[in-house]
Amino acid sequence: MNTPPPSERATVRRLPQRASYEETTIHAILDEGLMAHVGLAVDGQPYVLPMVYGRIGRNLYLHGASVSRIARQLAQGVSVCLTVTLLDGLVLARSAFHHSMNYRSVVVLGTATLVTDEAEKMQALEAITDHVLRGRWAEVRPPNTQEMKATSVLRLPLEESSAKVRTGPPKDDEEDLALNCWAGVIPLKLVTLPPEDAPELREGIRPPGSLLKYPRPQTAP
Amino acid sequence: MNTPPPSERATVRRLPQRASYEETTIHAILDEGLMAHVGLAVDGQPYVLPMVYGRIGRNLYLHGASVSRIARQLAQGVSVCLTVTLLDGLVLARSAFHHSMNYRSVVVLGTATLVTDEAEKMQALEAITDHVLRGRWAEVRPPNTQEMKATSVLRLPLEESSAKVRTGPPKDDEEDLALNCWAGVIPLKLVTLPPEDAPELREGIRPPGSLLKYPRPQTAP
Repeated sequence: MNTPPPSERATVRRLPQRASYEETTIHAILDEGLMAHVGLAVDGQPYVLPMVYGRIGRNLYLHGASVSRIARQLAQGVSVCLTVTLLDGLVLARSAFHHSMNYRSVVVLGTATLVTDEAEKMQALEAITDHVLRGRWAEVRPPNTQEMKATSVLRLPLEESSAKVRTGPPKDDEEDLALNCWAGVIPLKLVTLPPEDAPELREGIRPPGSLLKYPRPQTAP
Repeated sequence: MNTPPPSERATVRRLPQRASYEETTIHAILDEGLMAHVGLAVDGQPYVLPMVYGRIGRNLYLHGASVSRIARQLAQGVSVCLTVTLLDGLVLARSAFHHSMNYRSVVVLGTATLVTDEAEKMQALEAITDHVLRGRWAEVRPPNTQEMKATSVLRLPLEESSAKVRTGPPKDDEEDLALNCWAGVIPLKLVTLPPEDAPELREGIRPPGSLLKYPRPQTAP
């Protein structure tokens, strides 16, 4: 909470006591999240689309079909906002007004750039695959020339980013504490269920170690 | 999948076979989601922020502190894009290229309008509270005059909206089926953990029925 924000527009204004500009906090939230919501504006109309991503150091990577609208728009170097939100709990107060959510979110502002270097592009696809399931890249067939051509990869630097975090119980007004009403937190957690084999799976193949010890840090209560 | 899209810009272009413009599909996804990602553009720079919401018929309602940047921006009648995404599973193929996610998402395009009618505003706050936890509104102290003043409520009609849904196993290329590699789906589910009492809870108060039979439909595998 003591690192200064990287820019005026990346500064959290609302409830600034929840803001953090610490790189470790920002990276931890991004590494735990599965899906980002990416916003871009086309002629003043914003579009927000869910996208998977990967991180290498201080860069995020996105990918999409080369023919897709969003990949083509992003490749032109337009301004984007990428937001990742982890839901940690419902905060139930005694008054409707003080209801809230426990969450951890990161907002990244910047310009996405098309990755043209083939080696960086391959590393980015590895980072995206392993972001979803660590160790998966080493288990599967890597992209061939045709698949690489069909995929656009974009780099978004983490230069202008901020985190916002709410934790803990509801904060009711003093005079509401005596109300005959339960208050507290219902923790939320994203969990995985047992793996389901693909219908045409070769006989004798078991889920790999990367999956049985699913290593993604879970949304903690 | 057989209802026509409401507008050209709300038409899903990428993988249109996953698109739906059915009102029942769109409402079901919105009713199950807890958090929306709302995008708006300020001088060409998009901002995407997580917000809770509620639905009454064919309108969505958002709320925010009247003093917040986003509430003030939205109240000016700017174009927004509201996206809700439910993650249902990791789709693990034998090739990196065919990895995917099972998900259900809704994208709403439109203009948010500040709600000035006090009765509609109160109904919207009830819808937002009960969206998070059905029946909660009846259990808590409703907003007083000061709290109503401090809260802005915005209405976003569901006129231009689309859903996109992916379900089922990975779709590998024929020649990859023989690879010595597990393939399938890891289902994801957002679950609630046991409620945690607020520290200063009045003695003898138990979690209410609305909570113990938490009625939100869960993200099904």
